[in-house]
Amino acid sequence: MIIALDAMGGDYAPAVNIEGAIETVNDVEGIDIILVGDESLIQRELDGKRSPSNRIIIKHASQIVSMDESPSVAIRKKRDSSINRGIELVKNGEADAFVSAGHSGVVMATALLQLGTSRGVVRPAIAAIMPSLKAPFVLIDAGVNLHCKPENLFQFALMGSAYCKAIFGRDDPRVSLLSIGEEDTKGNELTREAFKLLKKIEINFSGNIDGKDIFTGISDVIVCDGFTGNVVLKTSEGLADAIVKILKREIAEQSVGRIGYLLMKKALIGFKKKTDYDEYGGAPLLGINGTCIISHGRSTAKAIKNAIKVAMEFSSKKVYEVIASYIEKYMVNNIGKK
Amino acid sequence: MIIALDAMGGDYAPAVNIEGAIETVNDVEGIDIILVGDESLIQRELDGKRSPSNRIIIKHASQIVSMDESPSVAIRKKRDSSINRGIELVKNGEADAFVSAGHSGVVMATALLQLGTSRGVVRPAIAAIMPSLKAPFVLIDAGVNLHCKPENLFQFALMGSAYCKAIFGRDDPRVSLLSIGEEDTKGNELTREAFKLLKKIEINFSGNIDGKDIFTGISDVIVCDGFTGNVVLKTSEGLADAIVKILKREIAEQSVGRIGYLLMKKALIGFKKKTDYDEYGGAPLLGINGTCIISHGRSTAKAIKNAIKVAMEFSSKKVYEVIASYIEKYMVNNIGKK
Repeated sequence: MIIALDAMGGDYAPAVNIEGAIETVNDVEGIDIILVGDESLIQRELDGKRSPSNRIIIKHASQIVSMDESPSVAIRKKRDSSINRGIELVKNGEADAFVSAGHSGVVMATALLQLGTSRGVVRPAIAAIMPSLKAPFVLIDAGVNLHCKPENLFQFALMGSAYCKAIFGRDDPRVSLLSIGEEDTKGNELTREAFKLLKKIEINFSGNIDGKDIFTGISDVIVCDGFTGNVVLKTSEGLADAIVKILKREIAEQSVGRIGYLLMKKALIGFKKKTDYDEYGGAPLLGINGTCIISHGRSTAKAIKNAIKVAMEFSSKKVYEVIASYIEKYMVNNIGKK
Repeated sequence: MIIALDAMGGDYAPAVNIEGAIETVNDVEGIDIILVGDESLIQRELDGKRSPSNRIIIKHASQIVSMDESPSVAIRKKRDSSINRGIELVKNGEADAFVSAGHSGVVMATALLQLGTSRGVVRPAIAAIMPSLKAPFVLIDAGVNLHCKPENLFQFALMGSAYCKAIFGRDDPRVSLLSIGEEDTKGNELTREAFKLLKKIEINFSGNIDGKDIFTGISDVIVCDGFTGNVVLKTSEGLADAIVKILKREIAEQSVGRIGYLLMKKALIGFKKKTDYDEYGGAPLLGINGTCIISHGRSTAKAIKNAIKVAMEFSSKKVYEVIASYIEKYMVNNIGKK
């Protein structure tokens, strides 16, 4: 399997991206990586590092998309960006998947343009995996669609459900709509209209949940617009980080001392691992014809490596084809019912 | 000081509300409480409980607003609700403040109608206090304005800044706009337009932050629409609860044993206190002519008691007058600059 990796995307690129790529080929069999980006910069990073050189190759791209660029401008003016060239490799069949920690809006817009959507899909969405008290769940959309229509949330629910089935093997995933209260009538105009649409189809739709229930594990799939999803994802990351810091401080203040700290360290490490977003790696873009994995901007080498693993799984299970057939089935059924 | 307490609002009403009222008068000097709601129900709860009977009186209201009611319907059809009667007491000068754990949208709509807004204020907003790694901060709007215009966010920033000054005595509170990235251009249409307005005035506006930075303590005031604010507030509550549970489980799994548990328990209790929303009690409705404190639906007796304390502080410091003069000053300056 060949993965195209955006060497230039993310806050710590290209160093951590290349490190992640090297770790992957050293640890995982049967995977080759194409590093897409500035050839001389990449070569300099690669020089002197131990990796099977025949399993990592470079595809030159002269331009870099910065985080504050507008997708429409980036698409027009940066044809030779690492994002555009990387997705092109997927389109041309030279790579099985594309992984980027760069500008998610530009990745989405480029994927839409180059690969197109699965039949029936109006807007692709990012599906992030998050931990809960029970099993991990899917949050969709985790950040690309900042302005949504009820029909978009409806499709996110379908895609999220199909994805959850495909990767976790859960039979009939429980899908919830993120709102500000459990009652059917709670929410803004968008969620109230989406609620009505979701009530009509035969997926396992449990209704509204509010933020308080997100981490209880009562939902397999949580649906929201991309602005809200991004806020949930990042607020959770920020709070988990803050809590680890507060606890360390508490331990010091309580003068539990060195023994207490050592006893607690294992528990904290276990906890950190369960809530560490690096562990979950990247989030796939669902609803496009191909495999694109988005890793977040602050990705470490570990996060990049895990994102590549997600890409492998997504691609080998042909998840995007599963989703396409699922959407087609339900959209046809749904249209038939109207 | 006299506080009117909605005896019927909240998931555990009227029991915890009345318990909270009794605890308050037993512990705090100089405060009398009017319990507003169904007289016979309230009397039954009060019977046999130890409290100075002359400091708690009942104001009968025959109707209850349920959590799934629309504000416009509740206002038209439930004139004798505990919310309407309670706010009437503030309007008529029979109470200094109103506290409710009931339907926040109905409290807001009723307060708007009965008390009116401070001069210049378009939409009142809920200001919640949240913990961070440094000092607590103000989140505004925490849940009543589900659809906002840029001008609303602009005013929330002003009101939040004035509130932060008044209650924490911070000189020049640092105000941030909650978005999905730090760059000026990041966000949806609402936040991008609000950003432009906030850049123009002389408050200490630090620009966008994303969810990851909320708990670092870099902002004194965080501004967002009420849907997003409610999601942030509840997601944080839910995650903090989940983390305590996960940690307890980790301790057990790591077989740290009884000593480890005892050592850690103190740290966990300290942590829980720092992140426990019951400790912060209620959140005031800013921008109306009077004091209305909203406590969340799952309020315990402790949360009710703390909400009453917030009401006392808010009312004795005449915070709503401070906010009114602040808004007036900045709105006039701002209009002058246009």
